Amino acid sequence: MQNYPSRLLEDAVNEFAKLPGIGRKTALRLVLYLLKQDTEEVNHFGKTMIKLRNEIKYCTSCNNISDTEVCNICADNSRDHSIICIVENIQDVLSIENTQQYNGIYHVLGGIISPMDGIGPGELKLDTLEEKISKAEVKEIIFALSTTMEGDTTNFYIYKKFKMYPIKISTIARGVSIGDELEYADEITLGRSIMNRTPFETTLAK
Amino acid sequence: MQNYPSRLLEDAVNEFAKLPGIGRKTALRLVLYLLKQDTEEVNHFGKTMIKLRNEIKYCTSCNNISDTEVCNICADNSRDHSIICIVENIQDVLSIENTQQYNGIYHVLGGIISPMDGIGPGELKLDTLEEKISKAEVKEIIFALSTTMEGDTTNFYIYKKFKMYPIKISTIARGVSIGDELEYADEITLGRSIMNRTPFETTLAK
Repeated sequence: MQNYPSRLLEDAVNEFAKLPGIGRKTALRLVLYLLKQDTEEVNHFGKTMIKLRNEIKYCTSCNNISDTEVCNICADNSRDHSIICIVENIQDVLSIENTQQYNGIYHVLGGIISPMDGIGPGELKLDTLEEKISKAEVKEIIFALSTTMEGDTTNFYIYKKFKMYPIKISTIARGVSIGDELEYADEITLGRSIMNRTPFETTLAK
Repeated sequence: MQNYPSRLLEDAVNEFAKLPGIGRKTALRLVLYLLKQDTEEVNHFGKTMIKLRNEIKYCTSCNNISDTEVCNICADNSRDHSIICIVENIQDVLSIENTQQYNGIYHVLGGIISPMDGIGPGELKLDTLEEKISKAEVKEIIFALSTTMEGDTTNFYIYKKFKMYPIKISTIARGVSIGDELEYADEITLGRSIMNRTPFETTLAK
């Protein structure tokens, strides 16, 4: 434990060191950087974080982060509201949006079932999804969660919950990454990519 | 450039991404982490940074960061005030303090001469150091700056400035690190460690 020459400095280092992936050395470097900036800039930094936490909204329809009641994806009438992609968090929405291959809407769970982290099925935000599905507005839901035990458990839980509805339930394809050489692919991925082989014509179409 | 679903989110990501060593992906991860914390915690985070920048003081004697007019090292009468170690920044003070091998005081330059970064000799905070040296309170100054062109230039500038005073001017020893194997040491370090060889008895004493 280092003996900081200033209580203010120590407090700021402690605050930064609470953030994920930031150790005390990095925290000190960030704090000293802030000290070198104009007071106005640092005030803005602090106020931006406070404003973010106090004013952020979550889309009342899909649970995505939003400045408005309904996020810009859910509010976009040119998108197909009958297909819903289930993702864990907002980074996943950004990743899929970046592909420009998806024109449906999303449902952000805000977490996946993980008994180790104390997240049970009750913690998943499924109310508005259930509402939409029960109103027969939805034709298909696509699971796009991590391929981990937690992700698979969550997929299965949601599948069981909604399987009585007349909707298609799919998951995103798992297989060897484009550009990867076969010899470096792990067995499970390779095995699944053989099992779920796709007609060659569909790859030609792209 | 990603299309964030919220202006507040984007502002916060931009603020984090200004910090050194933090890219936009990491910034987003930090912001989403803050969003999951209690409002009170995030308010505290923001306020701590604002308070730090607005209330921090620099020791009027050695220029180190301090909560008081004079830092706790300069105020400590059990330390030897006749030896001053010249360092670039406060991290260096912490590093040397951690060795528990130094009982003198420090002088923090707050930067080193670097024409590339627009830092000339005028930017170095040397006033209080000159004052102490001219009052004949100082017996020795020790340079502990980086072994770079900038560090060497700064050493030389300070050396020229104070060489007319009857004080000892030394630099910390450069040599092969303890635990390092010779074959991996770079030529310059190894060369200098041969040139500045020390009597074997001094190593036995430790």
